[in-house]
Amino acid sequence: MVDFIGIERIQELLARRGVARFMAELAAEIEADFLRWGAFEKSPRHATHSPDGVIELMPACDGRLYSFKYVNGHPKNTASGLLTVTAFGVLADVATGYPLLLAELTLTTALRTAATSALAARHMARPESRVMALIGNGAQSEFQAIAFHDLLGIREVRLYDTDAGATEKLERNLARLRLADLRVVRCASTAGAVQGADIVTTVTADKRNATILGPGMVRAGMHLNAVGGDCPGKTELHADILRRADARVVVEYEPQSRLEGEIQQLPADFPVTELARVLAREAPGRAGDTEVTIFDSVGFALEDFSALRYLRRLHHEERGVRRQIDLLPALRDPKDLFALLAPKPHGLAGGREVAA
Amino acid sequence: MVDFIGIERIQELLARRGVARFMAELAAEIEADFLRWGAFEKSPRHATHSPDGVIELMPACDGRLYSFKYVNGHPKNTASGLLTVTAFGVLADVATGYPLLLAELTLTTALRTAATSALAARHMARPESRVMALIGNGAQSEFQAIAFHDLLGIREVRLYDTDAGATEKLERNLARLRLADLRVVRCASTAGAVQGADIVTTVTADKRNATILGPGMVRAGMHLNAVGGDCPGKTELHADILRRADARVVVEYEPQSRLEGEIQQLPADFPVTELARVLAREAPGRAGDTEVTIFDSVGFALEDFSALRYLRRLHHEERGVRRQIDLLPALRDPKDLFALLAPKPHGLAGGREVAA
Repeated sequence: MVDFIGIERIQELLARRGVARFMAELAAEIEADFLRWGAFEKSPRHATHSPDGVIELMPACDGRLYSFKYVNGHPKNTASGLLTVTAFGVLADVATGYPLLLAELTLTTALRTAATSALAARHMARPESRVMALIGNGAQSEFQAIAFHDLLGIREVRLYDTDAGATEKLERNLARLRLADLRVVRCASTAGAVQGADIVTTVTADKRNATILGPGMVRAGMHLNAVGGDCPGKTELHADILRRADARVVVEYEPQSRLEGEIQQLPADFPVTELARVLAREAPGRAGDTEVTIFDSVGFALEDFSALRYLRRLHHEERGVRRQIDLLPALRDPKDLFALLAPKPHGLAGGREVAA
Repeated sequence: MVDFIGIERIQELLARRGVARFMAELAAEIEADFLRWGAFEKSPRHATHSPDGVIELMPACDGRLYSFKYVNGHPKNTASGLLTVTAFGVLADVATGYPLLLAELTLTTALRTAATSALAARHMARPESRVMALIGNGAQSEFQAIAFHDLLGIREVRLYDTDAGATEKLERNLARLRLADLRVVRCASTAGAVQGADIVTTVTADKRNATILGPGMVRAGMHLNAVGGDCPGKTELHADILRRADARVVVEYEPQSRLEGEIQQLPADFPVTELARVLAREAPGRAGDTEVTIFDSVGFALEDFSALRYLRRLHHEERGVRRQIDLLPALRDPKDLFALLAPKPHGLAGGREVAA
């Protein structure tokens, strides 16, 4: 039997643990794994593109545990009531190859992405950052707002989305949290939202080279958390922002980000730093108050590896129904797979019928 | 909700459909997909190797449906009562990226491998072939025997395995099928089993360059169905067999087989033919009665694609419990993923608690 965390169980786990604690613990797990970067077998994700979207497989392995995530990105889905991004993943035991856990990762991806964003910003944004612009107010935006509020001390979020309904939804959800120390400001444009922001988070879904942020909007000292440019042909930042003399660009896993990140717009030798080196303090995330720091985030398999291992721990620790599914056969003799076809008491599979 | 076929359901489906019909229908599905080879997006599988085994992800896509299989290969597992190979897979809708079906593929892999073997042999073995040697009598061997009996007309199987218990198990299982027209002969060695065989099927598990078949054992006119050499460093045939002047080698997907198949022992320009061309009659599977034909099979993602689509049809057609799992969220507003954290009647997730 394989542990199973579906939507009902993840809701229960989040309710029992509390979202804030969940996100803080998850950020710590992700950081710990980035700090042993060399222990992981890494590869760019396997992407299958179609006119309307992409389906990706993201494997990671540390020699003891193996994980992969299945994730899609289909921006047009929302028009028909479906999510842009859905995901699920599996954690497996390397020694036997047996899967241990199958888990929903749609909700978890939003949480791990926000946790990783906050983790990077802790090392890259100016410490006194208090105001964040949040461009793109869709499915992932609440999680970014909470992560930056809780883990970074953001006290004002300035919202903008081309879909006013999405912004209203985000405002409503944030209001329901009753965070007395978080000011929420709805803005009429990206330029307006970015005004006075210490951090700009872009988390839009359009599958094209969109220019969400133009060079004129970026001020010295800003930290840009660019989450939504994560596919070949899908970017959010004008290339001139990356080319600024005072810009510092950090990516998760360079071979993947060269294909998918904002830096796909630039030559292959454009200098970037991997996040693992920043977290390990081998390279600075920021040098001085006036640099423009850019976390060119596309999402890396290691973050899902950490999330799946964390989910497995919660599944075992937290009360509630710990469901399992019969994804694997249990055999008396492992060489006798055929025994699964043996006649059943209800007489459905008879020896003769098997070969009829 | 996503359709789910676990072990219990696959047993039920096989019992209702009958293994013979299941395998024949599956072979037809696989053949039909190979006949539209050009419609598929193909890539070698993604393999993660460890000292004891390998974990692989095998994606395939025809532009409408997407599938992947997770499969491991751990020869030492049987010593601790676990299967060498376990597998599961997912079928998804390309237009939305949403998964449609999660299915066990441990049993199904054995079935689809045997179906593919028989399919290839139909075009490659001499039509009057009646005797097959079956070297390696583990988890997959019964399925190979049934497929060649049912789909090819094999009337004598000659068994050998280094583990005598495995051979006894295979004999016992075949006896239970009461196939009056199938003679089962237990042999004392590979050389003995191969004596007089028209077809030699090798389906061993050792993860190394083993020489299951030496050049002296191979007679003119034989068809070799080499199933167990399917990993870098894992082969079954002596390279001289492949190098025979009268040998014809057919593979599933050349870029993958160059890495994993028997032909990994040979230079990259060693001539091979892809199975799709043979099935489409663009290339002969055999020219004359004296050629030695070799199906250097490693297993290709297209075969699992066909199997998953077939399983989904059965799951909907056949009676019984059609289980589903809550792998995906259903949202009123697809941009409001956060709604999943809304307070529940049981009061576990309160607004304040969420942000506590």
